[in-house]
Amino acid sequence: MPVKAQSQFLQVLTRDEAERRFREHLTLAPLGAETVALHAALGRVLAEDVVATVDVPGFDRSNVDGFAVRAGDTWGAMEEEPRRLSPTAETLAPGIVPQAEVTAGTATPIATGGMLPRGADAVVMVEHTDMEGGRLVVRRAATAGENVSYAGTDIARGETVLRAGQPLSSREIGVLAALGLDQVPVHRRPRVAIFSTGNEIVAPGAPLPVGAVYDSNAAILAAAVEELGGEPVRLGVVPDNEARLSAALRQGLACDAVVFSGGTSKGEGDLSYRIVAALQDPGVVAHGVALKPGKPVCLAVTQGKPVVILPGFPTSAVFTFHEFMAPVIRAFAGRPPEQRQLVDATLPMRVNSERGRTEYLLVGLVPGERGLAAYPMGKGSGSVTTFSSADGFITIGQHTEILDAGAPVQVQLLGQGLQAADLILVGSHCVGLDWLAGQLVRQGLRIKSMSVGSTGGLMAAKRGECDLGGIHLMDPATGVYNTHLLTPALELVPGYGRMQGVVYRRGDARFEGRDAAAAMATARSEAGCAMVNRNAGSGTRILIDRLLEGAQPAGYGVQTKSHNAVAVAVAQGRADWGLAIDTVARQYGLGFIPVQEERYDFVLPRDRLARAPVQAFLALLRSDAARAALRELGFRVDPGG
Amino acid sequence: MPVKAQSQFLQVLTRDEAERRFREHLTLAPLGAETVALHAALGRVLAEDVVATVDVPGFDRSNVDGFAVRAGDTWGAMEEEPRRLSPTAETLAPGIVPQAEVTAGTATPIATGGMLPRGADAVVMVEHTDMEGGRLVVRRAATAGENVSYAGTDIARGETVLRAGQPLSSREIGVLAALGLDQVPVHRRPRVAIFSTGNEIVAPGAPLPVGAVYDSNAAILAAAVEELGGEPVRLGVVPDNEARLSAALRQGLACDAVVFSGGTSKGEGDLSYRIVAALQDPGVVAHGVALKPGKPVCLAVTQGKPVVILPGFPTSAVFTFHEFMAPVIRAFAGRPPEQRQLVDATLPMRVNSERGRTEYLLVGLVPGERGLAAYPMGKGSGSVTTFSSADGFITIGQHTEILDAGAPVQVQLLGQGLQAADLILVGSHCVGLDWLAGQLVRQGLRIKSMSVGSTGGLMAAKRGECDLGGIHLMDPATGVYNTHLLTPALELVPGYGRMQGVVYRRGDARFEGRDAAAAMATARSEAGCAMVNRNAGSGTRILIDRLLEGAQPAGYGVQTKSHNAVAVAVAQGRADWGLAIDTVARQYGLGFIPVQEERYDFVLPRDRLARAPVQAFLALLRSDAARAALRELGFRVDPGG
Repeated sequence: MPVKAQSQFLQVLTRDEAERRFREHLTLAPLGAETVALHAALGRVLAEDVVATVDVPGFDRSNVDGFAVRAGDTWGAMEEEPRRLSPTAETLAPGIVPQAEVTAGTATPIATGGMLPRGADAVVMVEHTDMEGGRLVVRRAATAGENVSYAGTDIARGETVLRAGQPLSSREIGVLAALGLDQVPVHRRPRVAIFSTGNEIVAPGAPLPVGAVYDSNAAILAAAVEELGGEPVRLGVVPDNEARLSAALRQGLACDAVVFSGGTSKGEGDLSYRIVAALQDPGVVAHGVALKPGKPVCLAVTQGKPVVILPGFPTSAVFTFHEFMAPVIRAFAGRPPEQRQLVDATLPMRVNSERGRTEYLLVGLVPGERGLAAYPMGKGSGSVTTFSSADGFITIGQHTEILDAGAPVQVQLLGQGLQAADLILVGSHCVGLDWLAGQLVRQGLRIKSMSVGSTGGLMAAKRGECDLGGIHLMDPATGVYNTHLLTPALELVPGYGRMQGVVYRRGDARFEGRDAAAAMATARSEAGCAMVNRNAGSGTRILIDRLLEGAQPAGYGVQTKSHNAVAVAVAQGRADWGLAIDTVARQYGLGFIPVQEERYDFVLPRDRLARAPVQAFLALLRSDAARAALRELGFRVDPGG
Repeated sequence: MPVKAQSQFLQVLTRDEAERRFREHLTLAPLGAETVALHAALGRVLAEDVVATVDVPGFDRSNVDGFAVRAGDTWGAMEEEPRRLSPTAETLAPGIVPQAEVTAGTATPIATGGMLPRGADAVVMVEHTDMEGGRLVVRRAATAGENVSYAGTDIARGETVLRAGQPLSSREIGVLAALGLDQVPVHRRPRVAIFSTGNEIVAPGAPLPVGAVYDSNAAILAAAVEELGGEPVRLGVVPDNEARLSAALRQGLACDAVVFSGGTSKGEGDLSYRIVAALQDPGVVAHGVALKPGKPVCLAVTQGKPVVILPGFPTSAVFTFHEFMAPVIRAFAGRPPEQRQLVDATLPMRVNSERGRTEYLLVGLVPGERGLAAYPMGKGSGSVTTFSSADGFITIGQHTEILDAGAPVQVQLLGQGLQAADLILVGSHCVGLDWLAGQLVRQGLRIKSMSVGSTGGLMAAKRGECDLGGIHLMDPATGVYNTHLLTPALELVPGYGRMQGVVYRRGDARFEGRDAAAAMATARSEAGCAMVNRNAGSGTRILIDRLLEGAQPAGYGVQTKSHNAVAVAVAQGRADWGLAIDTVARQYGLGFIPVQEERYDFVLPRDRLARAPVQAFLALLRSDAARAALRELGFRVDPGG
């Protein structure tokens, strides 16, 4: 029994102490330089200062098409009183080195980019001249230096133009080319070995056995390494086998850093830790950090190379990676420390935190009446979507236990910073709404969608934090959906019906071919016929309790939060029946006995009704195309428009 | 004479009209999709909606190490009053499919990530249990659903997880991996052919003849195409030759778009335009746009492919590229339109603009007492550094002629947005200051440096817009440098001396071996001995006028703005002598006759004196290492500290 013998971490460190011990043994500096061709330098980091060895321009350059003159020869020239000069035989196209001097009373034709000849101190634009009988007629006076860029005005020879550490965008690449450089010294990219451990972990692309999990950590970490300026070395999924793990670690140590995920706890079965614990010089420096998520992270250094075991759960893995490894990779790559943008927001709901741990709470941001509201993305550290869909996170200090609803918070933005959205949808998820949103995205609207359930959507609409909230909440007193929850500030937009019914595995004689009443009679009474329930407060739960008539069969305590979870529990045999909608039953190939239609409608704050994106949504919802598509998906759409 | 026959553009269009005509013949939509491996998808753009075909998690998952139980069996359990359960034989490591049901009074060991067995509805953490005599002692009650993530809570099968048009960062890549995808449909990258034209244009890496220019446009444009999601196809530098240009254009038209620079005017010599003008369906749609910079841009479309001739001058080229081509490339690549960030600022000086043209004025931003000041980067459209060092630009409408000093302006940020700086240097450029700044950068300081000349630096310091301004301005009355310009709010930090003298080509018998007095006697009187002057207001000009004693020899009107420009004019033979500092004379291998030392000192607003980065600068300036380095560079450093 591996789990029972598990010991606690030897010493759980604070976040800062763990970081201090980790960095004590690392040199946070670029690993070295290499030379790359200029056309391959985009996104790299300059390894040396660049001092100009040429002037730009390299000569006194004409900025217009015209005539090189002595400015004094044109003084007083006007439309009615032009000056007349003798054109010289030479014509100064770009790249031509002038042979003759411009002497008093003469003018040399010169093109944009041409080299100013000796004697000239200005260029008269061709538009201000005419030729008359072989003489140049100048109709406007020029001042000394007019239309000339002197050598070195843009870049002076000897000037330090770019400095080591400069990330190279197109703008810097242009400057390097102007200096004539076709090779650039850049910091070499740190090579970071990445693998995942665990017998249950399956590489994307392979079939997924029941109980197994696709390896998302290796993919997100490898991409993050690239984003940080490193080069990921993908070592794949390594099974829980001492020899295989040792070999992977050895292979990884040929790189500049090793990062892997899974197996951070200290139970008997934890091979990863045992193998890393064998490293020396100095070896493991922290195992267990007072962080949520991410407590089990293990930090080690050997001969100046960081070796990190991240927790297996995706949010924990990516948070601990960004907390401890990302700054190291940036420094190895010669990049400056990241500067994350902070924004002020308000918590729309109370949040509890655990004393003694620094907690990072991922949030989604939506603009409301009182500025931004920061919605906690409550899917837990096992979620992979929490990190990808969050706008940022708040840090709850180790001494804070409660943040009240309405508390002001500072949000560190993730990704590209806060993206503006045209339409904000907060509420219950539905594949029908998915389809509608997709159509609007194709129309060019930017949509932000947060699945927080019906009640969450209703609350967001009341607080003015969304344009539309999809809800399906039954009034237990009347059996009518949604209308009982309206306030004067909210409008209810009719959506569509979703048929709810009993789902069961096809061929189960207890349900096959029966009607709802007969099925529920079985469900209420038959021992060994286990159900899967829904969460209290959901419309489906209200219906379930009605149908059960007070009975609480086996599985009543399994209170899942979605139609999908019900279908999976039945499909995988952990339960024999549950209540779900027919579109989901169909997806999982389950039997379905219709019971009652629920209404999936939209609440809409009235003061948002006039917004163009809201109107676009409503027009789409009422369109024949949408009605046909929703019917096709299995929803009940009222006839007519 | 090519320049003389030049005609005006047939019709100069407004910016918006030019854009309208250009887009009328283009389909601003992705060009097509292709499938790439997930590990090569970073930075690409999703071409199709991704609908989850699996639930994540795919089963009801334990989030902790512990025991799967029926929550009801633990109710009432406390430290002093534990509940006792019978452990089952099965152990549920991750990936194991449970075979037995958890029945009343039993508990099945389960690891983090393990699959919840039938019958169980909660997991008790191992920390809250003990084993005693083969029985599991549970010391804390569990609620239904505790420590369990139900199937599909993270991603529900059938849910649209990501939408077409989504750029793929590490965050999205993690989600795609979690769904088991190892191949991703992405928009294919538009291939953009890029070449430069002009006999004077030389590819970086090749030697640079006098009068020639390195090709920076192709490099910056190719890198910009990459940044926009396209694939640059580099066709190199094409000489002004009809057959060669036609061949390049034909080759380019095998791509999705063609961009080249140089040859946009309409003179006889303008082959580029003639060749593009031969395109049909529809061919040229705009030639000449009321834009500054960028008026000569030529926009064409043939069979749905954009063909654009950008002006040859770097700033004009990159501005017209971003104005007209960048949005097309983004659309072809399936990316959303760029959203540039706007910031408010104040113009510190008056700016004149030309009526009838939309002008884009590149500015550098520095924080001052009244918010941000937007300094025009006054190097002209021929500059390559203006665009690379600007923080953003302001748009001056076609009906505006004057923006007064102090005018509020909106600045569209370029690049990565506004970067915070620790130390702001505004003033005259000096390679000594370059060295000092480089040392501070190595200490980790972020430095923003703007070369606006001594007077500009003094004004910025008076306005509180810089930490330090390097200046070298002589009082004409006393010959003393810099001290006469102080105000009570400014402190003068002694810098170092720079020896000024007469520069001439080595071997010129008129100067070689003479002292300053003899050299100047020659310079004042000898016909055919041409000088190169400096700009009025510069310290060097004051010295020149003193030395000339009222004489104005040939070249007096050539008023360059830097020591380098003086040295280049002499080195290239456009002048025979000028006044410059010795370090510059040495760089160009010129002869040097010392005349007078000028002081390069630093003005510093007193209220910035206490800032740590300012103190770091002062400590460095006074250090032995800096004094030695400055001496090594050729500057005069006072003895002692």
